[in-house]
Amino acid sequence: MSTEGQVITCKAAVAWEPNKPLVIEDVQVAPPQAGEVRIKILFTALCHTDAYTWSGKDPEGLFPCILGHEAAGIVESVGEGVTEVQPGDHVIPCYQAECRECKFCKSGKTNLCGKVRGATGAGVMMNDRKSRFSINGKPIYHFMGTSTFSQYTVVHDVSVAKIDPQAPLDKVCLLGCGVPTGLGAVWNTAKVEPGSIVAVFGLGTVGLAVAEGAKAAGASRVIGIDIDPKKFDRAKNFGVTEFVNPKDHDKPIQQVLVDLTDGGVDYSFECIGNVSVMRAALECCHKGWGTSVIVGVAASGQEISTRPFQLVTGRVWKGTAFGGFKSRSQVPWLVDKYMKKVNLM
Amino acid sequence: MSTEGQVITCKAAVAWEPNKPLVIEDVQVAPPQAGEVRIKILFTALCHTDAYTWSGKDPEGLFPCILGHEAAGIVESVGEGVTEVQPGDHVIPCYQAECRECKFCKSGKTNLCGKVRGATGAGVMMNDRKSRFSINGKPIYHFMGTSTFSQYTVVHDVSVAKIDPQAPLDKVCLLGCGVPTGLGAVWNTAKVEPGSIVAVFGLGTVGLAVAEGAKAAGASRVIGIDIDPKKFDRAKNFGVTEFVNPKDHDKPIQQVLVDLTDGGVDYSFECIGNVSVMRAALECCHKGWGTSVIVGVAASGQEISTRPFQLVTGRVWKGTAFGGFKSRSQVPWLVDKYMKKVNLM
Ligand SMILES: NC(=O)c1ccc[n+]([C@@H]2O[C@H](COP(=O)([O-])OP(=O)(O)OC[C@H]3O[C@@H](n4cnc5c(N)ncnc54)[C@H](O)[C@@H]3O)[C@@H](O)[C@H]2O)c1
Ligand SMILES: NC(=O)c1ccc[n+]([C@@H]2O[C@H](COP(=O)([O-])OP(=O)(O)OC[C@H]3O[C@@H](n4cnc5c(N)ncnc54)[C@H](O)[C@@H]3O)[C@@H](O)[C@H]2O)c1
Ligand SMILES: [Zn+2]
Ligand SMILES: [Zn+2]
Ligand SMILES: [Zn+2]
Ligand SMILES: [Zn+2]
Repeated sequence: MSTEGQVITCKAAVAWEPNKPLVIEDVQVAPPQAGEVRIKILFTALCHTDAYTWSGKDPEGLFPCILGHEAAGIVESVGEGVTEVQPGDHVIPCYQAECRECKFCKSGKTNLCGKVRGATGAGVMMNDRKSRFSINGKPIYHFMGTSTFSQYTVVHDVSVAKIDPQAPLDKVCLLGCGVPTGLGAVWNTAKVEPGSIVAVFGLGTVGLAVAEGAKAAGASRVIGIDIDPKKFDRAKNFGVTEFVNPKDHDKPIQQVLVDLTDGGVDYSFECIGNVSVMRAALECCHKGWGTSVIVGVAASGQEISTRPFQLVTGRVWKGTAFGGFKSRSQVPWLVDKYMKKVNLM
Repeated sequence: MSTEGQVITCKAAVAWEPNKPLVIEDVQVAPPQAGEVRIKILFTALCHTDAYTWSGKDPEGLFPCILGHEAAGIVESVGEGVTEVQPGDHVIPCYQAECRECKFCKSGKTNLCGKVRGATGAGVMMNDRKSRFSINGKPIYHFMGTSTFSQYTVVHDVSVAKIDPQAPLDKVCLLGCGVPTGLGAVWNTAKVEPGSIVAVFGLGTVGLAVAEGAKAAGASRVIGIDIDPKKFDRAKNFGVTEFVNPKDHDKPIQQVLVDLTDGGVDYSFECIGNVSVMRAALECCHKGWGTSVIVGVAASGQEISTRPFQLVTGRVWKGTAFGGFKSRSQVPWLVDKYMKKVNLM
């Protein structure tokens, strides 16, 4: 009783309007067209970015939509011309595509594939610029090219990472966003070396993954900064060696860190999405070489600023999306790393 | 009739007050103390930074002082313990010292030696925290540890680059600031690769040196941006391949450049000191990899800003001081390069 080629009706959590509770609905999911893959989602997590778009603060948010972008599942069927996955394959849908053909993919310098971005940004599929989701004929927008808050979803083939079928999908679904973002910020974007002093601002999923990546990279000190002291205990298990709560200090947090580290940290990571913390993260870096990586996503319209002297005297300001990982090539590698249960790196 | 060990009375251009004409005075130059070198200055150029401090806008400017930091000369005498130069050596005084011993020098990651900075920033010599310049007993401050607008000056030994005695001092004096700053911004800070598209904002000495460095590094296009069209003709000799005058466009200059380059430049350099141009220079960079280097020095208190999304989507914001060159080690190498008259690089 194959569902291939059929419209599937299944449950999905639909965001009808910004900032209103998601509603579990019966949704019709059309079959995949050319270059598309329909996936049965078995596990999905919730990331800050889902909540941000849901809140209505994301000016590019489209409603009604099906949110979700951190998940794992099994391919149900594939459209014409899809060669790299087939029904039954275990996969992680990736909001950051990798086509291996566009200017971005070919540059070798970035993971920001541009192939399907025009469509995913508009909440539709590239083939016909339409949605595969509908409720009684009314289309429901896709989100980030993944829409994993549905029992079935349709994604572009360039957005599907095929993984080891032995991997526990309830665990590796986390490799769809936050964990690779944090690890990659350290390994790919900052390239932290052994012995480095690292500051992590914000100890949520992303910040904890940064800490874990820094520990694996051999950092000598990993200083965790959070305004919520409840985060500190758990963070120890992820490699954080020292804690600073900005609320315990009168001095600006950048000054507290410069004092703690004889001049500043070698690498800092902003994992919150707060533009004043982004500034502090840059300014707590050591003169001459300190590098700060922005990982958090700020509310639309907000700006970062600093005195240019901070950069002229050798600090570097960067950012990262999906930790710089090339999704289809490297998510399976992260899954293998997890499976080998070796120490990271 | 050696002057060694004697106070030398010579001519110097003294800045008595901000924004008032320099006055040629008879100045007494004390002998070098331990770790110091007295230099007979034969040629000196004028850089923007001299004019900036002279103008009174530099909050760290001290008066009266002897400005000047781009020069060449011959060692007249040396103080106790000075081993790397001796009287008669041809030298370039370097405002950026290199001690090879401090945390900065030993890091291998930066040229920002910290050894004498505390003294040079305060307009004095490290040994006794006093000036070697005076007029009838009234001390005159040093400037940038160089004070080359004087027939004789005293500098720290860690600030002296010994160069090929065959080199024409009237030419190589330019290797004391602007030219290495521009070349090094390209070679050391940005590390421009062959085939890159480069934008240079501001076509003064520093911008022209950036263009020359970019050409030598094999850039495929070097786009020069200046509001003064008189700069364009000369700039052709330095490798600039295209010109843009922001005044000829209604669109923001970053948009003009993005349109000209199918998405943005690979590297940009701000060689003006204008914080809005610094922003434009970042924002005209290509998504995914474009790197912008701030070379210009902004007026005190001014800030740069942008949306953090610019960095999260892969642009990198950096700065450079003296082009990242290690002064004592690398200025002689630049002189040799000039002497060999080989194509740069
Ligand atoms: N660049 C990317 O590719 C990418 C990917 C995933 C997530 N993100 C972004 O990363 C950020 C973090 O995501 P998360 O899921 O870990 O979030 P989270 O909400 O779980 O964690 C944020 C942490 O920051 C702390 N915090 C808040 N304000 C603070 C302040 N002023 N000073 C110190 N700590 C403060 C909170 O207490 C919390 O522990 C979000 O902005 C998210 O959108 C970016
Ligand atoms: N970082 C360092 O180590 C270092 C070293 C030397 C000089 N500098 C700084 O580099 C900057 C350039 O120095 P210079 O000697 O070449 O200066 P300059 O005055 O000779 O050249 C500046 C050029 O910028 C142009 N310009 C001015 N405003 C502009 C605008 N809005 N858009 C486009 N072009 C504009 C001018 O017409 C001029 O051609 C200065 O700020 C100087 O202080 C920095
Ligand atoms: Zn691509
Ligand atoms: Zn996410
Ligand atoms: Zn200068
Ligand atoms: Zn040093």
